Amino acid sequence: MKTRLEHDLLGEKEVPADAYYGIQTLRGIENFANISGIEIGNYPHYVKALAMVKWAASRANQELGLLPDNIATAIQKACEEIIEGKLGDQFPVDLIQGGAGTSTNMNINEVVANRALELMGHQKGEYQYCHPNNHVNLSQSTNDAFPTSFKLAFIFMNEELVAELKLLIQAFRAKGEEFKEVLKMGRTQLQDAVPMTLGQEFEAFAANMEEEIDRLNQMARLFLEVNMGATAIGTGINSEPEYSQKCIKNLRIISGHEFLLASNLIEATPDTGSTVMYSSALKRLAVKLSKICNDLRLLSSGPRCGLNEINLPPMQPGSSIMPGKVNPVIPEVVNQICYRIIGNDLTVTFAAEAGQLQLNVMEPIIVHAIFSSIKMLQKGMERLRVLCVEGITANAQRCREMVLNSIGIVTALNPTLGYENSSRIAKRALKENRSVYDLVLEEKLLTKEELDELLKPELMIKPHKFYRKK
Amino acid sequence: MKTRLEHDLLGEKEVPADAYYGIQTLRGIENFANISGIEIGNYPHYVKALAMVKWAASRANQELGLLPDNIATAIQKACEEIIEGKLGDQFPVDLIQGGAGTSTNMNINEVVANRALELMGHQKGEYQYCHPNNHVNLSQSTNDAFPTSFKLAFIFMNEELVAELKLLIQAFRAKGEEFKEVLKMGRTQLQDAVPMTLGQEFEAFAANMEEEIDRLNQMARLFLEVNMGATAIGTGINSEPEYSQKCIKNLRIISGHEFLLASNLIEATPDTGSTVMYSSALKRLAVKLSKICNDLRLLSSGPRCGLNEINLPPMQPGSSIMPGKVNPVIPEVVNQICYRIIGNDLTVTFAAEAGQLQLNVMEPIIVHAIFSSIKMLQKGMERLRVLCVEGITANAQRCREMVLNSIGIVTALNPTLGYENSSRIAKRALKENRSVYDLVLEEKLLTKEELDELLKPELMIKPHKFYRKK
Amino acid sequence: MKTRLEHDLLGEKEVPADAYYGIQTLRGIENFANISGIEIGNYPHYVKALAMVKWAASRANQELGLLPDNIATAIQKACEEIIEGKLGDQFPVDLIQGGAGTSTNMNINEVVANRALELMGHQKGEYQYCHPNNHVNLSQSTNDAFPTSFKLAFIFMNEELVAELKLLIQAFRAKGEEFKEVLKMGRTQLQDAVPMTLGQEFEAFAANMEEEIDRLNQMARLFLEVNMGATAIGTGINSEPEYSQKCIKNLRIISGHEFLLASNLIEATPDTGSTVMYSSALKRLAVKLSKICNDLRLLSSGPRCGLNEINLPPMQPGSSIMPGKVNPVIPEVVNQICYRIIGNDLTVTFAAEAGQLQLNVMEPIIVHAIFSSIKMLQKGMERLRVLCVEGITANAQRCREMVLNSIGIVTALNPTLGYENSSRIAKRALKENRSVYDLVLEEKLLTKEELDELLKPELMIKPHKFYRKK
Amino acid sequence: MKTRLEHDLLGEKEVPADAYYGIQTLRGIENFANISGIEIGNYPHYVKALAMVKWAASRANQELGLLPDNIATAIQKACEEIIEGKLGDQFPVDLIQGGAGTSTNMNINEVVANRALELMGHQKGEYQYCHPNNHVNLSQSTNDAFPTSFKLAFIFMNEELVAELKLLIQAFRAKGEEFKEVLKMGRTQLQDAVPMTLGQEFEAFAANMEEEIDRLNQMARLFLEVNMGATAIGTGINSEPEYSQKCIKNLRIISGHEFLLASNLIEATPDTGSTVMYSSALKRLAVKLSKICNDLRLLSSGPRCGLNEINLPPMQPGSSIMPGKVNPVIPEVVNQICYRIIGNDLTVTFAAEAGQLQLNVMEPIIVHAIFSSIKMLQKGMERLRVLCVEGITANAQRCREMVLNSIGIVTALNPTLGYENSSRIAKRALKENRSVYDLVLEEKLLTKEELDELLKPELMIKPHKFYRKK
Repeated sequence: MKTRLEHDLLGEKEVPADAYYGIQTLRGIENFANISGIEIGNYPHYVKALAMVKWAASRANQELGLLPDNIATAIQKACEEIIEGKLGDQFPVDLIQGGAGTSTNMNINEVVANRALELMGHQKGEYQYCHPNNHVNLSQSTNDAFPTSFKLAFIFMNEELVAELKLLIQAFRAKGEEFKEVLKMGRTQLQDAVPMTLGQEFEAFAANMEEEIDRLNQMARLFLEVNMGATAIGTGINSEPEYSQKCIKNLRIISGHEFLLASNLIEATPDTGSTVMYSSALKRLAVKLSKICNDLRLLSSGPRCGLNEINLPPMQPGSSIMPGKVNPVIPEVVNQICYRIIGNDLTVTFAAEAGQLQLNVMEPIIVHAIFSSIKMLQKGMERLRVLCVEGITANAQRCREMVLNSIGIVTALNPTLGYENSSRIAKRALKENRSVYDLVLEEKLLTKEELDELLKPELMIKPHKFYRKK
Repeated sequence: MKTRLEHDLLGEKEVPADAYYGIQTLRGIENFANISGIEIGNYPHYVKALAMVKWAASRANQELGLLPDNIATAIQKACEEIIEGKLGDQFPVDLIQGGAGTSTNMNINEVVANRALELMGHQKGEYQYCHPNNHVNLSQSTNDAFPTSFKLAFIFMNEELVAELKLLIQAFRAKGEEFKEVLKMGRTQLQDAVPMTLGQEFEAFAANMEEEIDRLNQMARLFLEVNMGATAIGTGINSEPEYSQKCIKNLRIISGHEFLLASNLIEATPDTGSTVMYSSALKRLAVKLSKICNDLRLLSSGPRCGLNEINLPPMQPGSSIMPGKVNPVIPEVVNQICYRIIGNDLTVTFAAEAGQLQLNVMEPIIVHAIFSSIKMLQKGMERLRVLCVEGITANAQRCREMVLNSIGIVTALNPTLGYENSSRIAKRALKENRSVYDLVLEEKLLTKEELDELLKPELMIKPHKFYRKK
Repeated sequence: MKTRLEHDLLGEKEVPADAYYGIQTLRGIENFANISGIEIGNYPHYVKALAMVKWAASRANQELGLLPDNIATAIQKACEEIIEGKLGDQFPVDLIQGGAGTSTNMNINEVVANRALELMGHQKGEYQYCHPNNHVNLSQSTNDAFPTSFKLAFIFMNEELVAELKLLIQAFRAKGEEFKEVLKMGRTQLQDAVPMTLGQEFEAFAANMEEEIDRLNQMARLFLEVNMGATAIGTGINSEPEYSQKCIKNLRIISGHEFLLASNLIEATPDTGSTVMYSSALKRLAVKLSKICNDLRLLSSGPRCGLNEINLPPMQPGSSIMPGKVNPVIPEVVNQICYRIIGNDLTVTFAAEAGQLQLNVMEPIIVHAIFSSIKMLQKGMERLRVLCVEGITANAQRCREMVLNSIGIVTALNPTLGYENSSRIAKRALKENRSVYDLVLEEKLLTKEELDELLKPELMIKPHKFYRKK
Repeated sequence: MKTRLEHDLLGEKEVPADAYYGIQTLRGIENFANISGIEIGNYPHYVKALAMVKWAASRANQELGLLPDNIATAIQKACEEIIEGKLGDQFPVDLIQGGAGTSTNMNINEVVANRALELMGHQKGEYQYCHPNNHVNLSQSTNDAFPTSFKLAFIFMNEELVAELKLLIQAFRAKGEEFKEVLKMGRTQLQDAVPMTLGQEFEAFAANMEEEIDRLNQMARLFLEVNMGATAIGTGINSEPEYSQKCIKNLRIISGHEFLLASNLIEATPDTGSTVMYSSALKRLAVKLSKICNDLRLLSSGPRCGLNEINLPPMQPGSSIMPGKVNPVIPEVVNQICYRIIGNDLTVTFAAEAGQLQLNVMEPIIVHAIFSSIKMLQKGMERLRVLCVEGITANAQRCREMVLNSIGIVTALNPTLGYENSSRIAKRALKENRSVYDLVLEEKLLTKEELDELLKPELMIKPHKFYRKK
């Protein structure tokens, strides 16, 4: 393999000649390869975000006269190529790394520098013309460029997650509409409660998920506060007074997102509070999604010895031994994804708590955990929608029979008969294995007409004026 | 003990004659006593919130003509007494209970009913005149009244928490001002980085905590969306169409908080999403507070073999064997509180995920966990402020010496000398155990005047125009 | 209030004259009161363990000639009184405390010293005759005496926990026997699977819990390795070479447990690994108990619209609005307890990870969490046994009907008909809403005699020789 | 692409002609591809374990005369090839899957069947001669074959983990030996405590890790209890009475591990208790490893403004802005790995609690989490040993100076001077910024000879006979 020789603080190393990354990236590879097996380059949004931050910084430096125009232009051009998706294979450092992101920051610094060198007509490695640190990283530190980059990546990925979430909501809503006439028993504490429609149940799934759009976006907005210009510890050492605001302005331009400068850069630099909050929102989505999947599995339990109110589309034979068995495999896999997201959130919590003094060195695992959570939730919701929700059918007949046979409908008589009368009827019905309907008539508590009126489905599934026995 | 006989669905029981609570509360006591040892009555804000919800419901029922005026008036008067703090000893049910809060709801229903009976000139237990279910609980279910009550309690308790948080912020800010001239080394990854002031460090603690005010309040606002009128499962069975809005209106009046009706009551009834989010905000506060306590312990480490930049006020002899040892006991106890809050958040996560179909029966443990977290954080922040932060003093001399002796100040020369020159000097300084200052002069990289200018403290602790060597 | 004046490293304080504790306990109260609201004295086993450790240390010191006989005797007598349950109200320090347990250690040191002084005919506070540090704490540090004490307390409390667990196992086993003839459908993935008996299901609960006895005891045995003689950091400074072994020997005598000296005291002193492991065992018990409670709630779901295989004893009216509803409140509260134990385990994990250098200062929260977990599990299992399991009844008729009506019984024909034939029959049965039995006959796959033989309950619920169709 | 047509319960699909897997594996791919991105085949130990279980089952079936010899022989030969590492690319199903492992079980069933077919001279897909279900899966269900397989895989992987752990222990132990003369201050609560040697500190790391060998192996032994013969739900339907024990016997033969049949197969089938316990042991290792990495980072803090007792080998330039900075990147990445393991353990906890009735359908995520934890811990420990521990050097001079300058050495005078005298000296030393040594002489508490004797390093770092002032 052809190589070129590069050196750094610790010595010299042979870098593959055609690599755009350089010696520091190489050290990152050597130190951290296969820690998680997931590399920067596996997340194109991340690479794009890194390049956008370098683009914004170089423009700010150029505007302040700190970077010669020819170098600045080359750097920006290199960044634009990366933003467009080029050189995506030049980011081989593992996401989980020591050094608080220095390897990631140097990876983008080196790739941009070498590509800029080429654009300027130089050879890769001729850093005297465009240096990863002195030029690409000018006015920056890993400690500001790295968190700003991953926050931007989170924003991009959140957009995709929310888009997928919206499709799932639509699917639930369509089923809510489809099932709006299917009368069924509601259940609380797994005990028969009072009637509702299956449509109401699915519309509630839609409404439940809909709130998550707001929560995710609300928490993702916290990522818009960044610390460019903080440099090493937030004091802004080695940056000029106007740099911060110029950099933010350019970051807004290149990203299209309304970034703001943190009001206290010393506070902002080690702070990972926004990641804790966003990860919590992912956890909340997971908790809710898991509850919905649990419900889908309950409602489709059976076919003969369970609730059997709905049918999930069969995806695969359910058993290697029990012929004909079909299982709710898609909700099951989504449940498991949710448990992983909850675990990831704990990892974020641990990492956030481990910040010390002027930096939180555990940011890389936070990035890894949140990327993984977003991606898995996105995938899980897509699977759930396409392979499960859209194909759900109702067993309307069975649903209705359970309502008519239930004791819970006595609740509808409560305002008319009073809590104690109703309790007694309920108790008798259960003990004697009879229907509420018959017992009310037998005890002459209501006429048949009164009773039929009170038990009309359309009256039981929403508030209405009480009928009161004179 | 004198008793009165009461009965319910399951039979009869003797209730202490002077108890305002009744048979169902008694069953709650028998079933759940000492599960956690913490009773409803231990949280006065909770009792107040329960009474406010009953007040609002009875007013709504009265306005709809569902409750005779004399009964309604007596119920409201009873609620007002409880709101004022009376009968606080009548709520002995354990916070952790089965039944999704039914015991809690029946406890307030029974106490209100019996007190209302007295106000109407009847005896306790004469429920034909004012019945816990038929009158006090009219148009309600545990499944709407219970979550609405605990959400209101969370709002009250959050106000107190934020008030305590603000005092802590002031204490950090005052120290930020006091220490603004104390030059010290900043540290990243526990390695010497670049200079800052101790004042900047404490002001950053203040700024870091200040963000929590917004987060806590933002998440607490989610509690304003409630489901009164949902009754059993959100269909509003046994409530009249206008009841919900009238109830909310009255809840706004009595509580002073801008409650809103959930747009989908079937969704809202089993949903515990707001508690997940608020608990996450408590966790975030704990994570940040723990990081700050870790920092305080690091900065005060020593006295002779640690960083020793600050002194915490001594609170107690530090050792039963090592004479003269004084330990950072207050930050230590706050760290431990924080670990408890993180544990509580996991409990909330598990409970929230365990909702099934039309209800989440695990709400009581969520209430227990969040109450406990708020109370412990409040106590911990008070202890931290009064017994630690306010008494912190700086070792200014030692702080300054470490700066002057550091290698990190070479960073300030970076823009002038370049990254590679600076790296070489740093490496030599470390290896030869010499000062950066001397080596720069020895190598004639800068004149003494240039060097002194670049290393002025006021230039190192904030952004400034670069001095560039021609 | 009458007081006596005491002094320590930090100055003087008035101690209540009749208090057996002294100035350092008083500081602990002032610093940590109501952090958790749970005091040392709330756990009598803990007080007893603390006294046993002091007894053992004083005997070791006496045997080495380090402690005059009269003082040693008085100290041991004082300890014995405490072990018998006296002076239980003299331990008011909150369990959650800074100082790595120093307040707890000084609380026992001071109480023992003052009681010993009385026994020697002196006044409380005349420490020249028997000093909390110089005599009671002789050869010890908080860093060995404190962890040894709480480990002994864990051992005592584990014994009670296991005793309660055994009663629960018996209750499950009795139901297993009672229900051994009740044929029912087994379910996997909530889908109908193959037949079993309800007795097998309850016996499996018993067997499942039985494993926990071994796990708890196995992990509790880790507490037998202690670090007496480690003194401050494990180097044993200020202890004599033979002290460690003598102390352990005496600890064995007084406690009746086979304590061992840790082989590396410097390792043992900051290590909290045994608590991590034992807390994990508690978590495992909680995880399993929660799964069982989930099952009990599923099996008793209904009464008309759920599985309804078993009836839990009704404990309280189930709803404030739905008459006649009875809920599984006891399994519900046990589920919630389990979520709390899982949260506590996370607190232990955080605290254990936070050890630094020669000590883990977060031990007090570990003690608090494990005490709380043991107590709640114990209470929860008692409630579950007495108020739920022992009163469970079976709906045998319904269970049998579901088996006969099921498609899953086709599995029993699998070895005879082959997987593909069986799958086809299952599919037809489901689609045409017919029984497997009829379809097999209709398709003439087996004769009625063959079929009846294959579907005998006693053949389906255990392994048997296959019948093969020629 | 050439294909062959296969069919199952749900219909027909084209399978790639050269694939050894079949239609059910294909459905698994379609349903779950890229859920985690990690496939069965990524873990060769897992593939091996799956093949061993099939080998053992087929031998048991053969011995019982249930499987014709020619088919049995072909199946076993196919399994042996897979055990030797062949066909490793034929296991493309994602580790995270719905269906409780059915896709995994069918993947191995199909691959074995098709390879057996080839060995018997048939074409792939000619299942009439050797069928994935009827022959390879004979007497089995996913519900016994799957958990038995992953338990065996855990055992294999645990062996590798323990081997790596032992190497790390050796590395710590070697440093313990190397540094045995380096006197340094011990620290408790981050405050100066009493002297020890750096060798003692590293030997304690070794001892601390050594305990993990026992814990991991102790917990891994729980995996030896398996449920072969349980078939669908533990009743053993469709298996013959002697099958279980014959299968276990053969599993012992092929794996070399002492497997046992669970005593209650109905209990064993849904139970994931062993995974909870083993994952807890992994968590404990992570907690301890993280604590050690925290210590390494503390001890190497500096170089000028920290403890600076040891030097970690520099692995990469530490900063993109601060020249010459070298960071503890390896301990940092290991900390992050540990947070991931703790998160994985929570995922396992959630999944284990989610078992329902006769099965725990969440087992696949448990497998994923534990595989990931083992692999990352193994990698992390290797990195820590090779790139960090083995290259650590001591700053012996600085260590000793801190001891001599410390106040903590007064502890060594405690037995001679008494706790109160010593406290006073300590307080004066701190206040007047003087040395304990000078003050003791000045106050004439001891002669110089006495003092020098008491402060001999060799006396301070271990127990010794007290010198008592007459």
